[in-house]
Amino acid sequence: MRKIINDPVHGFITIDDELIYNIISHPYYQRLRRIKQMALAYLVYPGAVHTRLHHSLGAYHLMQNAIEELVQKGIEISPEEAQGAKIAILLHDIGHGPFSHALEHTLVDVHHEELSLLIMETLNVEFHGKLQLAIDIFTGAYPKTFLHQLVSSQLDVDRLDYLVRDSFFTGVSEGVVGYERILKMLTVHQGELVVEEKGIHSIEKFLISRRFMYWQVYLHKTVLSSELMLVKILKRAKELAKQGVELFATPPMKYFLIKDYTLSDFENDEQCLQQFLLLDDNDVISSVKVWATHSDSVLSNLCSRLNDRKLFKVKFLATETATQIETWRKQVQSDFSISDEAIDYYFVQDATSNKTYTAGDEHIKILFKNGELKAISEVENTLITAELLVPVKKHYICYLRK
Amino acid sequence: MRKIINDPVHGFITIDDELIYNIISHPYYQRLRRIKQMALAYLVYPGAVHTRLHHSLGAYHLMQNAIEELVQKGIEISPEEAQGAKIAILLHDIGHGPFSHALEHTLVDVHHEELSLLIMETLNVEFHGKLQLAIDIFTGAYPKTFLHQLVSSQLDVDRLDYLVRDSFFTGVSEGVVGYERILKMLTVHQGELVVEEKGIHSIEKFLISRRFMYWQVYLHKTVLSSELMLVKILKRAKELAKQGVELFATPPMKYFLIKDYTLSDFENDEQCLQQFLLLDDNDVISSVKVWATHSDSVLSNLCSRLNDRKLFKVKFLATETATQIETWRKQVQSDFSISDEAIDYYFVQDATSNKTYTAGDEHIKILFKNGELKAISEVENTLITAELLVPVKKHYICYLRK
Amino acid sequence: MRKIINDPVHGFITIDDELIYNIISHPYYQRLRRIKQMALAYLVYPGAVHTRLHHSLGAYHLMQNAIEELVQKGIEISPEEAQGAKIAILLHDIGHGPFSHALEHTLVDVHHEELSLLIMETLNVEFHGKLQLAIDIFTGAYPKTFLHQLVSSQLDVDRLDYLVRDSFFTGVSEGVVGYERILKMLTVHQGELVVEEKGIHSIEKFLISRRFMYWQVYLHKTVLSSELMLVKILKRAKELAKQGVELFATPPMKYFLIKDYTLSDFENDEQCLQQFLLLDDNDVISSVKVWATHSDSVLSNLCSRLNDRKLFKVKFLATETATQIETWRKQVQSDFSISDEAIDYYFVQDATSNKTYTAGDEHIKILFKNGELKAISEVENTLITAELLVPVKKHYICYLRK
Amino acid sequence: MRKIINDPVHGFITIDDELIYNIISHPYYQRLRRIKQMALAYLVYPGAVHTRLHHSLGAYHLMQNAIEELVQKGIEISPEEAQGAKIAILLHDIGHGPFSHALEHTLVDVHHEELSLLIMETLNVEFHGKLQLAIDIFTGAYPKTFLHQLVSSQLDVDRLDYLVRDSFFTGVSEGVVGYERILKMLTVHQGELVVEEKGIHSIEKFLISRRFMYWQVYLHKTVLSSELMLVKILKRAKELAKQGVELFATPPMKYFLIKDYTLSDFENDEQCLQQFLLLDDNDVISSVKVWATHSDSVLSNLCSRLNDRKLFKVKFLATETATQIETWRKQVQSDFSISDEAIDYYFVQDATSNKTYTAGDEHIKILFKNGELKAISEVENTLITAELLVPVKKHYICYLRK
Repeated sequence: MRKIINDPVHGFITIDDELIYNIISHPYYQRLRRIKQMALAYLVYPGAVHTRLHHSLGAYHLMQNAIEELVQKGIEISPEEAQGAKIAILLHDIGHGPFSHALEHTLVDVHHEELSLLIMETLNVEFHGKLQLAIDIFTGAYPKTFLHQLVSSQLDVDRLDYLVRDSFFTGVSEGVVGYERILKMLTVHQGELVVEEKGIHSIEKFLISRRFMYWQVYLHKTVLSSELMLVKILKRAKELAKQGVELFATPPMKYFLIKDYTLSDFENDEQCLQQFLLLDDNDVISSVKVWATHSDSVLSNLCSRLNDRKLFKVKFLATETATQIETWRKQVQSDFSISDEAIDYYFVQDATSNKTYTAGDEHIKILFKNGELKAISEVENTLITAELLVPVKKHYICYLRK
Repeated sequence: MRKIINDPVHGFITIDDELIYNIISHPYYQRLRRIKQMALAYLVYPGAVHTRLHHSLGAYHLMQNAIEELVQKGIEISPEEAQGAKIAILLHDIGHGPFSHALEHTLVDVHHEELSLLIMETLNVEFHGKLQLAIDIFTGAYPKTFLHQLVSSQLDVDRLDYLVRDSFFTGVSEGVVGYERILKMLTVHQGELVVEEKGIHSIEKFLISRRFMYWQVYLHKTVLSSELMLVKILKRAKELAKQGVELFATPPMKYFLIKDYTLSDFENDEQCLQQFLLLDDNDVISSVKVWATHSDSVLSNLCSRLNDRKLFKVKFLATETATQIETWRKQVQSDFSISDEAIDYYFVQDATSNKTYTAGDEHIKILFKNGELKAISEVENTLITAELLVPVKKHYICYLRK
Repeated sequence: MRKIINDPVHGFITIDDELIYNIISHPYYQRLRRIKQMALAYLVYPGAVHTRLHHSLGAYHLMQNAIEELVQKGIEISPEEAQGAKIAILLHDIGHGPFSHALEHTLVDVHHEELSLLIMETLNVEFHGKLQLAIDIFTGAYPKTFLHQLVSSQLDVDRLDYLVRDSFFTGVSEGVVGYERILKMLTVHQGELVVEEKGIHSIEKFLISRRFMYWQVYLHKTVLSSELMLVKILKRAKELAKQGVELFATPPMKYFLIKDYTLSDFENDEQCLQQFLLLDDNDVISSVKVWATHSDSVLSNLCSRLNDRKLFKVKFLATETATQIETWRKQVQSDFSISDEAIDYYFVQDATSNKTYTAGDEHIKILFKNGELKAISEVENTLITAELLVPVKKHYICYLRK
Repeated sequence: MRKIINDPVHGFITIDDELIYNIISHPYYQRLRRIKQMALAYLVYPGAVHTRLHHSLGAYHLMQNAIEELVQKGIEISPEEAQGAKIAILLHDIGHGPFSHALEHTLVDVHHEELSLLIMETLNVEFHGKLQLAIDIFTGAYPKTFLHQLVSSQLDVDRLDYLVRDSFFTGVSEGVVGYERILKMLTVHQGELVVEEKGIHSIEKFLISRRFMYWQVYLHKTVLSSELMLVKILKRAKELAKQGVELFATPPMKYFLIKDYTLSDFENDEQCLQQFLLLDDNDVISSVKVWATHSDSVLSNLCSRLNDRKLFKVKFLATETATQIETWRKQVQSDFSISDEAIDYYFVQDATSNKTYTAGDEHIKILFKNGELKAISEVENTLITAELLVPVKKHYICYLRK
């Protein structure tokens, strides 16, 4: 059992474990081929059409490398633990729906991590319990904390892969991260994943690159605008569907348009999860295309604009007062003769943080040669100051432009 | 007027012409964002999800460079001609539908180049005749032959871009082409595009790389298999639709399922072209997903297999006789209890050439320092022998595997 | 006149100007092929053996691109000015000797920029005054300040090239700079080179990458150690030579060993400059190799150690007191039975700043869309804080290790 | 024991074996830092200044990967054998002198492979016999043939590294080889190194890339010319030295100038090998620089030309008769008033093959899935025809140009 997959980012990815091969071949995993990693960012960066399947395969590859390095340094990792960690990272994003950040606020109001766990458990039944160790690593229940930290922490292989991959496919060279070097600097101290002293500058560089990608790519005005328009489209469509208005939709879209489901619905009604697992980018985009000619003018207007890339304008706010923003809003309303009912679809005030991406606390720990352990933010003379740790938050308005 | 687009392949692509910007912004062109350049090849190469829009922007960039080089060498090219050549290459693939090679044999039986011309003419009306020069260059009507050759010939910027781009996104490094060097070796002799003597080895390398990409990527067994399965799916769906069987489909899919249209339909019925321009990968994939549960067992079987990547096996034929193949076919039929009516959907005998990609004649001309002009295949001591010029043709069978 | 040079960093470098071609062909310029850009850094980074000729050709290429971009933005630059700026950057490092930072404190105590100017003036005579405009741009005498700033400022093409080139040849990916993007963001405002608002993050990234390269590469302990050892070797050899001790040396080495020359010697005695122009890495290294068996034990010891890469240890100082350092020094002296006279060759206390590289003030100016002009360090929410502007200064001791 | 070295070509090279670390640290190995891998090719490709140390470290890294792959495929390789193979490849080029191809025909007329073996044996004594297995693998005496083939055969890691490395540093992208893929296709059959069937196209590509590098780089006219000039310089200098003419030279240069040594001299006189081990590029180049002002006009003329890159012209011969060449020769002689005695220094007729690089027989064997074994040249439909296997041989004249 030995398969090789070409990856333009990492070279070759090797699969040499039957269970892992079977998981990758499973329809639930193959579904990730149809979900773009960076949602609508391709409207700005035409190359950014890579998929969640591709990213999770890449993260799996980095996990393989990380484990190999740690084993060479004398850290004990059994073959079962290695397999578990690899499966955990392969499946860490299995719960993502299409355009996840937009979807989770509209069509399917359940967090993707909760769905990932639910799907892993479903697969675990199908694979006769062989995924249990992977699940324990994923949830953090497994005692060797560092395995969980490789899957999910400030310095996990998930981030390493998506930064380097998103940078590769967008062509934004500034996001490139020396992940090979970082992997070589990782070690384990009292059960926790830490970084060797000589890796400090690489960690600095990694955090700065991530910061760069946020501002230049993930929170790019045009990306924000298109995602917001998709949110508004899905909200409007759902509203109409609930009112009984006739609306084209692929079957899984229709399922989630006409009713709201909570996590407990997913847990209790098998049908709910099955429908979710049928949903991907194609359903959303082909529905949006048809709605561009719907009789509801708000829906059709938003859809044809998103389709043809006639996007809303985004303006970051500095010192503007609520009154000024209100004036602005009135202006847009009058410029386009928008009704009071509809204006919320054409003029949005929002902030980026806690919404699309969050930076979180930077508790990356550095292990000094003298045995000392310090958080990177407490190391002297680094760039990683308190300021950098504050979550990214920018207020903006997003509105129909002339 | 100056826009910059990040391209991971070429770095930055600059747009500094209002007409070109408006063409790129046009919904017909934006549609190409939703059509993958390499169709189903992503089932083998997960990175191969780049779009026809991305490729044509890249080819436009190479055209810009090629023209700059030629002008520096003293070749006369007016600003209008430069603009025309750039528009011609931008739009050369505008007539592609989704999964073009599969589609053109089933759903829409019109060649994409004919549709490209038709769409260019439609745009020409909309842009008040400003695309006429581009159309003349595209069709070869314009007297400066070399401009047409830059758009379409054995050494056009189309091929240079797709080879390097497909190589980049698949991660198949062997397909990399030194396109920068080739562009620098181009010149014009008696109105024709030729290559300077010192470019011989680069041309050799280019042709060998292309050959490599055919065998390793474009004609990869799994790619052939998945495209053939899509052909069978679309044939079956069309058959059923024509028989009046109820079938989910997005509106433009439905339009082309229930009736056959010829080029003259496209020329005479505006609706026909409009529906075509609404069609993209999303319509095909979301329809195929729904059909996976259709009551017609042939359709649902093929669709769920393609969806879940449970693909047919491809076997290249060497000396097998017709009788042997017939035995094989019977075996497959009995193994899976397939009816006589259905077996053609599960066992296909075919050949690759004249179908997906053709190599064509290699009339690349070399201009020697002494003024002599020779076809590359007539130059001594090159690899480009007669054998290499024969169109690629491999017979194979493709069938349901156990 | 059109020559193309392969550059692994920038692709192809084009020379299409006869004067520039003749300058490049001149023996004074060709000499730069024999001087490594990064001196002894190859003892740590085996790939870092690229030459000053290669760097200055690369900077010339970036100047070509920068000028093209500015002209496209409507900035007036005449062909003569473009030629002048290109020559100025080609020759900006022409005054470097071998292992310049070591040499300038020992063998030839004249600053390389002063020698660059002197050599340009010599060439200007030989080329009948055709280098005058280049010289004026180099010295800043030419009224269009931005041309000088492209040659020498916080954001000149010199830095852009050396960062990306040093990063390429060392393999330290963290130093990669998106120079293509930076060039596209440059513009001219009131005669000065400034950066457009949307280039802020790229400038941040550039400064951070530079900072990274200082710590990880230029001021790498082993690099510091080897350069310091070379300084000590040259000091000792000069001492011995002046005392009349017999010493192998290539002729230009001998010339500078037996006497000290000042800038005015270079200006007044043609022979002095001619000998300097014969000096390169080969003279230093082959002399050092022979000295490894010299009867003077200090000289031979240092030389054989440098030759065989048995380098001194470097320890950065934190809170150590002068007394502690003195104890250390005594320890080294007693461990190796070093005489009082010789100990300064084996135990050195120093600091990095103002010596090998200086960071200088960061007066990169950002031009906002609203017309405002701000230094990057005054722009809110950037990483470029006061702290980052302080010159890099680290104290260390460097000594013979057990 | 764990050291990491940055390599721009392969990423990171890991050394985790004390013996290997000690070999790398040995002065004999460190000497390879001072010998350029591609000799004078940097006169055409300014980036081609990488060293033999860098190449052999790279080949060592590929050996590490190859062994890892083979072990994963179930091939038995003991830790001692793995260490032996790695040491063998590390030291395979240890016997190279500076500008080896020029040197071996003039200054030191002993083949570098014989010297490599001699030096390995010297080191083996110093390392108490721990290099014996490496030596046996190197000479082919060790029974597991495939280990020797990894070190030296048509598909050894030596070639894989130098092709990809030379391609990287010259910037000639056409020479890039998919070495990662080739390593993954290697396996062992009846004790011999073979390639799996699906690796055929990669092998084709590898051989074509190598062919490309020969024509475009290794046998580039200007490279041939400069190497030939160096041959002539060393011949002339040796002639003069033997005649007792006073001549500057570094000590090891002097040693080899005044007398000829054969392999048996190296074997019997320790001093001979010791002097050879002191010789590197710096000795040659610094001597050549001084000779540029020697009173012997032939020597000084050749040296100043090589120094300043005023190189001879190379013309490949097609159908020219001996009489025509003789006329040419006479013309050069009269144009520059060259004496009969001196003309052989200024006009050379030669052929490339069997001299600088030889192609050799291509006995790369392909293992088919059905168990069949075929030489690549016998596989149908490949590019690797008889023609390609014939050694490269081109006749040319090389002469002083006007």
